[in-house]
Amino acid sequence: MRTLLLVAHGSRREASNDEVRQLTDQLQSYINADEPPLFDKVSCAFLELAPPSIPDGLEYFISAGTKEIIVLPYFLSAGRHVSEDIPAEVDKVRDKYPNVKIKIADYLGSSSGICHLLLSLAVK
Amino acid sequence: MRTLLLVAHGSRREASNDEVRQLTDQLQSYINADEPPLFDKVSCAFLELAPPSIPDGLEYFISAGTKEIIVLPYFLSAGRHVSEDIPAEVDKVRDKYPNVKIKIADYLGSSSGICHLLLSLAVK
Repeated sequence: MRTLLLVAHGSRREASNDEVRQLTDQLQSYINADEPPLFDKVSCAFLELAPPSIPDGLEYFISAGTKEIIVLPYFLSAGRHVSEDIPAEVDKVRDKYPNVKIKIADYLGSSSGICHLLLSLAVK
Repeated sequence: MRTLLLVAHGSRREASNDEVRQLTDQLQSYINADEPPLFDKVSCAFLELAPPSIPDGLEYFISAGTKEIIVLPYFLSAGRHVSEDIPAEVDKVRDKYPNVKIKIADYLGSSSGICHLLLSLAVK
């Protein structure tokens, strides 16, 4: 079982957290349309200010039997949150389950596809 | 003359602001490759914490002779910054130059292309 955990910062504004949850649902639909699906399940977690936490999100997947988790930082810049805080949260769980493979993917802002996306919005 | 202003939040961490400036350079290169180019010039501005401000970014374009500016919010969620603060900053300049057309595009997080980009990162 291979799963994807989208990790956002988390906000005091609940509507912003809901945007992340809706995006997670969209990702799940997107994946379900693939045959075979790239991931069995997609979920989200928040670094702070909203549930679930990153460890809770990871443990949810592990208790469901996943053996491989990709953690995907939904962040635009490579600041301390991406370089230190998210890895530290992941390590809390990694150390408890050495047989589960957990990989942190590149953060959203590092994607070379961002330019194309921005220009699509700019001319819409 | 038609120009594009990428607007980010701005950070106390200068490397994060530099990421936005580098992305702006990438956008300019991307646009230059189009014939005819979608925009004559791309620049960036910051809502707070880093120069130039949104009014300064807009006035830079206007002093160079632009008649149409697209403001593109480089934000992931539709919070107060996107719904209130950026429009308020734009209005300061709009009121001074009624003959310049300034349009605020949809923010990055609203793009339906985000799913595809995230999955590309997840399987990289």
